[in-house]
Amino acid sequence: MRARNLAVVLATIHRSGPHTRAELAERTGLTKTTVSSLVADLIEAGAVSESGAVQKGERGRPGMAVSLSGHRVAALGLEINIDYLAACVVDLTRTVRLRRTRPADNRNSDPAAILEGLRVLAKEITAEAEAAGLRVIGAALAVPGTVEGGMLRSAPHLGWRDVRVDGLVELPVTIDNEANLAALGELWFGSRESDFLYVSGEIGIGAGLVVDGAVFRGTFGLAGELGHVVVVPDGPACRCGGRGCLEVYAGQDTLLGELGSVGELVTRLESGDPGAARTCERAGHALGVALTSAVHLLDPGRIVLGGIYAPLYRWLEGPVSDGLGARLAQMRGTPPALVVSRTGPDAAVLGAAGSVIQSVIADPAQLLGL
Amino acid sequence: MRARNLAVVLATIHRSGPHTRAELAERTGLTKTTVSSLVADLIEAGAVSESGAVQKGERGRPGMAVSLSGHRVAALGLEINIDYLAACVVDLTRTVRLRRTRPADNRNSDPAAILEGLRVLAKEITAEAEAAGLRVIGAALAVPGTVEGGMLRSAPHLGWRDVRVDGLVELPVTIDNEANLAALGELWFGSRESDFLYVSGEIGIGAGLVVDGAVFRGTFGLAGELGHVVVVPDGPACRCGGRGCLEVYAGQDTLLGELGSVGELVTRLESGDPGAARTCERAGHALGVALTSAVHLLDPGRIVLGGIYAPLYRWLEGPVSDGLGARLAQMRGTPPALVVSRTGPDAAVLGAAGSVIQSVIADPAQLLGL
Repeated sequence: MRARNLAVVLATIHRSGPHTRAELAERTGLTKTTVSSLVADLIEAGAVSESGAVQKGERGRPGMAVSLSGHRVAALGLEINIDYLAACVVDLTRTVRLRRTRPADNRNSDPAAILEGLRVLAKEITAEAEAAGLRVIGAALAVPGTVEGGMLRSAPHLGWRDVRVDGLVELPVTIDNEANLAALGELWFGSRESDFLYVSGEIGIGAGLVVDGAVFRGTFGLAGELGHVVVVPDGPACRCGGRGCLEVYAGQDTLLGELGSVGELVTRLESGDPGAARTCERAGHALGVALTSAVHLLDPGRIVLGGIYAPLYRWLEGPVSDGLGARLAQMRGTPPALVVSRTGPDAAVLGAAGSVIQSVIADPAQLLGL
Repeated sequence: MRARNLAVVLATIHRSGPHTRAELAERTGLTKTTVSSLVADLIEAGAVSESGAVQKGERGRPGMAVSLSGHRVAALGLEINIDYLAACVVDLTRTVRLRRTRPADNRNSDPAAILEGLRVLAKEITAEAEAAGLRVIGAALAVPGTVEGGMLRSAPHLGWRDVRVDGLVELPVTIDNEANLAALGELWFGSRESDFLYVSGEIGIGAGLVVDGAVFRGTFGLAGELGHVVVVPDGPACRCGGRGCLEVYAGQDTLLGELGSVGELVTRLESGDPGAARTCERAGHALGVALTSAVHLLDPGRIVLGGIYAPLYRWLEGPVSDGLGARLAQMRGTPPALVVSRTGPDAAVLGAAGSVIQSVIADPAQLLGL
């Protein structure tokens, strides 16, 4: 009961901003005595702090407003991607405090070696956060593959299968697919819209559907594998074992070809290189086909292009929009809006840290138990 | 508060069978006096009845068990499809009491005329139900098209757009897409599994995804339009405005060609007609491609083939399973099981009536207000 009331009070402060204890009592239906005691616990845990006296046109002496504190509780976001490792620390107000990215070549790699590298990165950034007075209370890890039962089940580009990440850091760690976490990153750190399909263009292509502020996960947590939606049924073989998947036409490897980075591709596109333009056009056309199928099945509020599609948005927008318009207009009137991600390449690692913050706000009693 | 307690008591009886008042008090945490009063209301409303004395190894006089009553409260299911109208009456125990189907040609029809036909059918079956002592308390209508804000937005095969169905019967009426309701029909009257993608093969092809016993609807209620998933991006034009949609390859019109009914097609298939076999093989192949995309995006527990795909299952199973197996095995291990619907062609109209029953069980106070 106390745990539930702590959550109610913290959620009220989180949703509607600083409140006096009297206002919190009014909004939650709890007694002032109970609210005062709960607020004392939340202050002790570092979740909230008194942010100054307020007088809102009422008589009597002013109350002290209590607001979410960014000074103490923090979460660690971690990401293993195919060509980098990343970590970040986010505080309870979802302000990004620290972020680090380490380029790496993780293709067909040894999980133990990569996890050791991530452990070092996590340890460094956690120490830095603690030196700044933060208390890192949990971690979440984004991986470019499917996750079931707290385990990385299959990450074909890493060449990993059935990998556990227990003991990565001395903290509770959850693990989730990078596209799901990137979608949450977009929700909390980007556009803050509550309904969209986030498309994560990376070496693999994933998607995270957010409906009414929550990720849709399907039955086994495997939903959103946009990269393997069939674009051409007898197209080239895909490494998933299928043929003509979206990834074959619009994955990072196809887009870059011999180029070393997305930056190089952008430079070529800006200089009017016809080969680069053709590659982007073809990828955009395939994306339009796969997203048509996705809109029919998932019914997203809008479509957000993220990952490497963000810097390529200028060149992708036309062919993708044309494809969606031609195929969807008659059944749907206006197709869902197509927009570019506001979060940048660290959407997934931010979403990971944000998901830990979300769990703290949903159950602040875990702060007191620690 | 009383409304909520009525719902708690009725849900307990619904979920775990007949109970004495004492058992209900124990299970719900309500006092025996409160439970007795709530049960009296539910008996008065015809929602429950006393089903005999039980003595479960306890001392003292036996209590009377209270169980869900099928004798009084009932719901009306209605369906407008492209080649028929249907109606059914289902009682509170979800026993089907009456069902009627009227063949019709509703293509490119006048909504007013068709709705008038449905009104007559609804009136007849309601009168018959009332003559049997049932009290029909609400109706739901299944339509072969998209529904938004209580309105049929677009049913391309009917040729209807933005049609309201207010005043169809003198009862509250909800309206929903036929594939969603057929999925609920399968859930409540068929396999009773809680996680599956129901594929409704009709003149149009729809799908209803059930995750943990609830239909996934997407952001605008338009999810599950499997018929317009792209199978071949530059394939034949579809009436939706797109090209190469699943419906072009596997819709009823394509499967039947010049034949007059699914029964005729089955007869030809049974006699080994090579043209009929080829058509089915091609439809199954296209279904395998579209369902691969659907599995990657929606992550269903299993796939249930319904509508006209049920009688054709023997001939579709091979090509569909082969397609799913070849494309999904590497990423998913075993692809979702493919099974045939247990509900038959009236899945949608049963699901419609069942959805009204569900709303009564969730809020039995509406019975007392009437």
